[in-house]
Amino acid sequence: MKQPTHTEHAMQACIEACSHCHQVCLQTAMNHCLKTGGKHVEAEHFRLIISCAEICQTSANFQLSSSQFSHQLCANCAEVCEACALSCKKIGGMDDCVEACEKCAKSCREMASTQHKA
Amino acid sequence: MKQPTHTEHAMQACIEACSHCHQVCLQTAMNHCLKTGGKHVEAEHFRLIISCAEICQTSANFQLSSSQFSHQLCANCAEVCEACALSCKKIGGMDDCVEACEKCAKSCREMASTQHKA
Amino acid sequence: MKQPTHTEHAMQACIEACSHCHQVCLQTAMNHCLKTGGKHVEAEHFRLIISCAEICQTSANFQLSSSQFSHQLCANCAEVCEACALSCKKIGGMDDCVEACEKCAKSCREMASTQHKA
Amino acid sequence: MKQPTHTEHAMQACIEACSHCHQVCLQTAMNHCLKTGGKHVEAEHFRLIISCAEICQTSANFQLSSSQFSHQLCANCAEVCEACALSCKKIGGMDDCVEACEKCAKSCREMASTQHKA
Repeated sequence: MKQPTHTEHAMQACIEACSHCHQVCLQTAMNHCLKTGGKHVEAEHFRLIISCAEICQTSANFQLSSSQFSHQLCANCAEVCEACALSCKKIGGMDDCVEACEKCAKSCREMASTQHKA
Repeated sequence: MKQPTHTEHAMQACIEACSHCHQVCLQTAMNHCLKTGGKHVEAEHFRLIISCAEICQTSANFQLSSSQFSHQLCANCAEVCEACALSCKKIGGMDDCVEACEKCAKSCREMASTQHKA
Repeated sequence: MKQPTHTEHAMQACIEACSHCHQVCLQTAMNHCLKTGGKHVEAEHFRLIISCAEICQTSANFQLSSSQFSHQLCANCAEVCEACALSCKKIGGMDDCVEACEKCAKSCREMASTQHKA
Repeated sequence: MKQPTHTEHAMQACIEACSHCHQVCLQTAMNHCLKTGGKHVEAEHFRLIISCAEICQTSANFQLSSSQFSHQLCANCAEVCEACALSCKKIGGMDDCVEACEKCAKSCREMASTQHKA
């Protein structure tokens, strides 16, 4: 059994970060935001947190599938996560979501900057 | 901050089991099965492992969203996971996938048998 | 080139109904409901319309993949669509969504009652 | 009832192109490719057609949700569709898939070049 390479470790960490961020965003939107109402269900914020949940899921799936386009998806995912973290900070009371988004953005930025090797 | 209830703990565990099973199935199909070929890419097995990955994702998403249909999705997910575990056992060499499917099936069976409370 | 069978025609129609219902539910939730607010973003309704969008997507994907579990997914999808149609009717102003859900429910009920043949 | 704008028409057309391409790619992979075997289930091609199905789904969902990141997703989707069309052409016998990918790539390129207006 061969040892996982540095790149494989980094990808597994990024998959975990994306999966966690997907979970926290979806759970926050469909529970905390819907219950709290007001700014939490304004279109701009709510669309962003749902978009973030979805792109994190897709980014994880591309990496799990060893897609040659994983690094592009990661770049995209990082951008959405950063915007979502800002929106959650601005409204407040969603610290878990901010943390998950920032961690995922960082991990995706690293993956996006890695040269793809099939 | 209130303590999570027994049901909330059980649901979080089921979300984790579904998410893990989704990851293992997709990763196994798109890496191990495609590389190994032969029985691993026969239509019946390959469709099953891909279906399993997808229903686990949907089951997790329903629970994350506190959907009133979560328990039905869990019942469905358990059935697909059990079939996928059997198919992986029969072909062999996919012990991680068998384990993830069996664990997810067990957790989903428990959730499915829980009465839904909004 | 062989002619599509009666079952293949029925499945293609069901895939279209699921795909259309997915689109209408997601578009209604993320545009009409978020803009209108009030009852449209109450947790019970909003979760239902989002669950409906997701199960329709999964049901379509199972059929597109010729999954042996397609008929179970269709049964599940029909149930969620019927609940979503009722919720949209009760709140009002979402006639397109009611129509798409009812049509999808009917098509899924038919597919669910068909014996699966690989 | 106001008339749909030029941009709304273009987006609806792009959603249809993405949804159609998603369906054709998934159906081709899970039926034609798995049945035919050989080059059709080689990792590079199979991962590409599955990635294409998934990014088309996500791109459609972003547009349906009026996500502010729709144009970026469209740019990404166009790139994957173009690669998938080439791979299908090279292997041969997947003309429907080539056509769907090329049409979706063209539509996504147009959307990607449109300035986003909330």
